[in-house]
Amino acid sequence: MTRWRLDVAYDGSGFRGFAVNIGIRSVAGELNAALGRMCGHDVTVTCAGRTDAGVHARGQVVHFDTDKEGLEAARLMRSLNRMLGPEIAVTDAQIVPTTFDARFSATWRRYRYSVVTSVWVDPQVARFVWHREGELDPSPMATAAQAFVGHHDFSTFCRRTPPAPGQVERSRVRNLHEFDVRCDGPHRLDFWVLASSFCHHQVRSMVGTLVQVGEGRRNVDSVARALESLDRQQCGPVAPAEGLTLWQAGYG
Amino acid sequence: MTRWRLDVAYDGSGFRGFAVNIGIRSVAGELNAALGRMCGHDVTVTCAGRTDAGVHARGQVVHFDTDKEGLEAARLMRSLNRMLGPEIAVTDAQIVPTTFDARFSATWRRYRYSVVTSVWVDPQVARFVWHREGELDPSPMATAAQAFVGHHDFSTFCRRTPPAPGQVERSRVRNLHEFDVRCDGPHRLDFWVLASSFCHHQVRSMVGTLVQVGEGRRNVDSVARALESLDRQQCGPVAPAEGLTLWQAGYG
Repeated sequence: MTRWRLDVAYDGSGFRGFAVNIGIRSVAGELNAALGRMCGHDVTVTCAGRTDAGVHARGQVVHFDTDKEGLEAARLMRSLNRMLGPEIAVTDAQIVPTTFDARFSATWRRYRYSVVTSVWVDPQVARFVWHREGELDPSPMATAAQAFVGHHDFSTFCRRTPPAPGQVERSRVRNLHEFDVRCDGPHRLDFWVLASSFCHHQVRSMVGTLVQVGEGRRNVDSVARALESLDRQQCGPVAPAEGLTLWQAGYG
Repeated sequence: MTRWRLDVAYDGSGFRGFAVNIGIRSVAGELNAALGRMCGHDVTVTCAGRTDAGVHARGQVVHFDTDKEGLEAARLMRSLNRMLGPEIAVTDAQIVPTTFDARFSATWRRYRYSVVTSVWVDPQVARFVWHREGELDPSPMATAAQAFVGHHDFSTFCRRTPPAPGQVERSRVRNLHEFDVRCDGPHRLDFWVLASSFCHHQVRSMVGTLVQVGEGRRNVDSVARALESLDRQQCGPVAPAEGLTLWQAGYG
């Protein structure tokens, strides 16, 4: 058996998320189907970060196992990219030890969230940003964002999904390493977040809350208080999926 | 009556071109509908360059006339951008003298044609480039392209459309000012072309022919000979629409 690692980028607009689910179009579904055709048996990919419907990726990492012999990296990439079409790109392919696991070996994930605040947004980037008209003050947002850095219970900023029957609720404690707010010209803000891992809707919940700070509708201190409260009601509106991109996953 | 000039950008992927035609989705159709709702009467836009199906624009210019009073530029832009959605953006709006004509006052048009030659293409740019796998040598392409600069009959590089009954065939003589071939990294080529105006399919015909030169399947001199021949058979394959963007139109 051979284990392969693939690095994958995608435009998430046309997918109902990464994970396979019956009756929906998913990134994993497309990858599994293309790999299945190449390998001659069912293939199931495992990923570094299960992105939600409409979320994009520049550096998603997946692994899969195959008994097929003689696969060669350059040929594999070429065939996959031809089969997958323009919405998904395989940017690297390599054989890895079977101890490598795209999900459990990943030690950090970096996401970018982009907001455009002008009246119009360039149609060439419109699919990959949140178009939210009206000025935002970046300085208090950057200050407030520092409350997120460190080891915290992010219950306030996570979507609660009830545990499966017989299972205990999963911890929402995470270690967040960096949260940068950067201006790209007068009408674009990029939020860069790096953490060991993220809970469901965490980046979009944090960004939606910070945007309220940038609008002047919420003060800086309220973000730290919301975090401490562990109360989902203290979270701002969840920012829309289209602005979010899984930028990179780190190993070792 | 007031004449307005709008500067317009669009992702052409979802449109069957700029011009209105029955039963198809066109950029002008969307603009006319949105403007008609705002003005309370039928509106017909006139443009600097009628782009084909799948061709994009960053700096298309249109004009329209209205009797509606009290329209204000900032409000007009805001309302239009909300109505038009992410595929079309109105990037500027201004009242112009009625002597201004988006088509006939334009003294030049600049197009960009982009080719990506690597195995994969970033899904965030895939809609706006021609993904044509395999290396191209830019140097002979740049040399061959210089044959196009100047005052020429571009019959070889234009799609022949039979004249309407009773009309004479239109001249295919054009004045081409610049043709630059630029590398953007090892796997991307941008062709920048500036001319007074262009015939139908002209940029894509010239690019398709130059790509054969870059592939080594055609020599540099054959391009100038093809141009002189006025023989459409001497043209290479027409490059696909998705790589082409109307970049700018110039006035005065």
